[in-house]
Amino acid sequence: MSKIRRLNVALAQHGYAIHIGSGALAGSLAKDALQGRKLCVLTDSHVAALHLPALLSGLGLTQEQVLVLDAGEASKSWMTAERVLDWMLAQKLARDAVLIAFGGGVIGDLAGFCAAIYQRGIAFVQVPTTLLAMVDSSVGGKTGVNHARGKNLIGAFHQPRAVIADLDLLKTLPRRELSAGAAEVIKYGMLGDAAFFRELETGAIDRLMALDAETSATVVERCCALKAKFVAEDEFETNGQRALLNLGHTFGHAVETYTGYTQWLHGEAVGLGLAMAADLSARLGWISAGDSARCTALVARAGLLIKPPAGMKPENFRCLMAGDKKVAAGQLRFVLLRQLGDAVLTADFDDRKLSETLAHFCA
Amino acid sequence: MSKIRRLNVALAQHGYAIHIGSGALAGSLAKDALQGRKLCVLTDSHVAALHLPALLSGLGLTQEQVLVLDAGEASKSWMTAERVLDWMLAQKLARDAVLIAFGGGVIGDLAGFCAAIYQRGIAFVQVPTTLLAMVDSSVGGKTGVNHARGKNLIGAFHQPRAVIADLDLLKTLPRRELSAGAAEVIKYGMLGDAAFFRELETGAIDRLMALDAETSATVVERCCALKAKFVAEDEFETNGQRALLNLGHTFGHAVETYTGYTQWLHGEAVGLGLAMAADLSARLGWISAGDSARCTALVARAGLLIKPPAGMKPENFRCLMAGDKKVAAGQLRFVLLRQLGDAVLTADFDDRKLSETLAHFCA
Repeated sequence: MSKIRRLNVALAQHGYAIHIGSGALAGSLAKDALQGRKLCVLTDSHVAALHLPALLSGLGLTQEQVLVLDAGEASKSWMTAERVLDWMLAQKLARDAVLIAFGGGVIGDLAGFCAAIYQRGIAFVQVPTTLLAMVDSSVGGKTGVNHARGKNLIGAFHQPRAVIADLDLLKTLPRRELSAGAAEVIKYGMLGDAAFFRELETGAIDRLMALDAETSATVVERCCALKAKFVAEDEFETNGQRALLNLGHTFGHAVETYTGYTQWLHGEAVGLGLAMAADLSARLGWISAGDSARCTALVARAGLLIKPPAGMKPENFRCLMAGDKKVAAGQLRFVLLRQLGDAVLTADFDDRKLSETLAHFCA
Repeated sequence: MSKIRRLNVALAQHGYAIHIGSGALAGSLAKDALQGRKLCVLTDSHVAALHLPALLSGLGLTQEQVLVLDAGEASKSWMTAERVLDWMLAQKLARDAVLIAFGGGVIGDLAGFCAAIYQRGIAFVQVPTTLLAMVDSSVGGKTGVNHARGKNLIGAFHQPRAVIADLDLLKTLPRRELSAGAAEVIKYGMLGDAAFFRELETGAIDRLMALDAETSATVVERCCALKAKFVAEDEFETNGQRALLNLGHTFGHAVETYTGYTQWLHGEAVGLGLAMAADLSARLGWISAGDSARCTALVARAGLLIKPPAGMKPENFRCLMAGDKKVAAGQLRFVLLRQLGDAVLTADFDDRKLSETLAHFCA
């Protein structure tokens, strides 16, 4: 086992540690004050087939303490949440129990939501198995399920007790999932760290896609540190800081909703959204056309699509974006780039430029 | 409009005011910084028939901004929560909207839960219409729904933005509901204020049941002040202080679950639970048999039953109580009386005495 990096998320209440490294799972979980707590595990069919035996033997758990859901975004639903809660109640979990989320963003968001509302809140631990979950969704306490009207419309803020990012788990990750995670990685460079963006451009993105151990650890740590900073400044998304993490997401959510959450991975939709947000920022004159092109190029280099799904029109985007959570007082708002590495949440933009961006991408 | 009393619930974050008095609804709601916020109202069929026109005209709302649910505990369900959330989404409520809970404990708990998980939490205001909701359930931020396995097993802590207790609303309350609320009033005397208990004994309970204005205002204020103290000391029920508010509830929940939430009102079950908790405290030698008898007598004087439902046996109590939220590390715990006006949460009791209490009441 190589050195495990440890990063703290400093919150007023409920601060916690992120453990990052190859073999982190075997090394940290047991130490994490889980002794004496009743544990149970939520995971999905893909992860269970690949990694469940290792998790069970590491924690000394039995198959009865595990609920395996169908893999995929469709499990992140109100109906599945009910099934998970029924199962937790059947396990007779008390309020001192700990739910372990063993999977990607879907499992993490769903498990966190169920932990948040099970008997008014029990502890949970994130063990992300995808790059996207490691760099983004497992940190920060956003939990929830989707609704027919849009993503994450039902949910709660509920911080995990710990996050264990074991890079060994990425070795079995399909390449498409790796690209989806890379989209969130690029997002962090674009919204908050221009130097990091340049590092990605100058080769780190390729070494990440090749799962170079040192690069992976550094990238995950850097993204988590950026996320932790934004979360600490705005845990409950009240002052606008945290909303900046949604760069690319307003466009991306529209794509996911349009395709019924079944064809595009969340990160793939975010990748396209990043390119669209950069394009709109350039059309508004906030960043150069050259910087916008750099963003689009980096997204494409990570193996991501930079065109909306066939048939999706500007009016589809507009209609679906009107239901976004960032809408305030009836006004659509976007996270846009003031410059590369510096994002802003704004409702103050020329709507004709938005039409140009939508027309350009839907052409 | 008579003088409105104002009481503050002092919390680290999200403190709020309780407004108490005849005509409080017309006087305070408009002042409560709701201007510019999109409002919507959740209520039930009984309350809507009696009081909705007054609420709508007072707030300048239309019928389209109101969702009316069937009255009764059955509405406090996962399925109904989904219906409410669907409706909120159909209303296109943004995160700055305010949900008004206009009803008793069922509406308050359900509305609070839906506000807690709608887009990860929006504001809500409690406008309790029953005595029980005014003295107990509307204050403190406990929200949730029931489950086939027990009451309030799914939920969240979510504090209201304000509580408006308009005593005029009690004039249309059925006597049975008034008795149910009186059970929680007696609870406050038993667990935290022996002088208040004596006042109730020396006539205040009868004046409350007759809806004497001055007595009602004083009783609601005193109960809310006691509740606010416990909530401020232990907002998230982590140090045991707040659990003391559950005096009588472990027995009571068993009765409600046994009867499928349809025959006994929550407060009626709590009334019986108070008598059983006092009886067990006396059998353990913690309070005198005389003080136990005083508790039972006061419960009966408020028009409440002091016998379990026909057919309910000690083993029914034991089985149903094993699923209680106060179970920790597999150990059943009770709130019991060290003396009248002083409660304690304990797992350290002689189980044979519990058998005696159950046998005595089920005889």
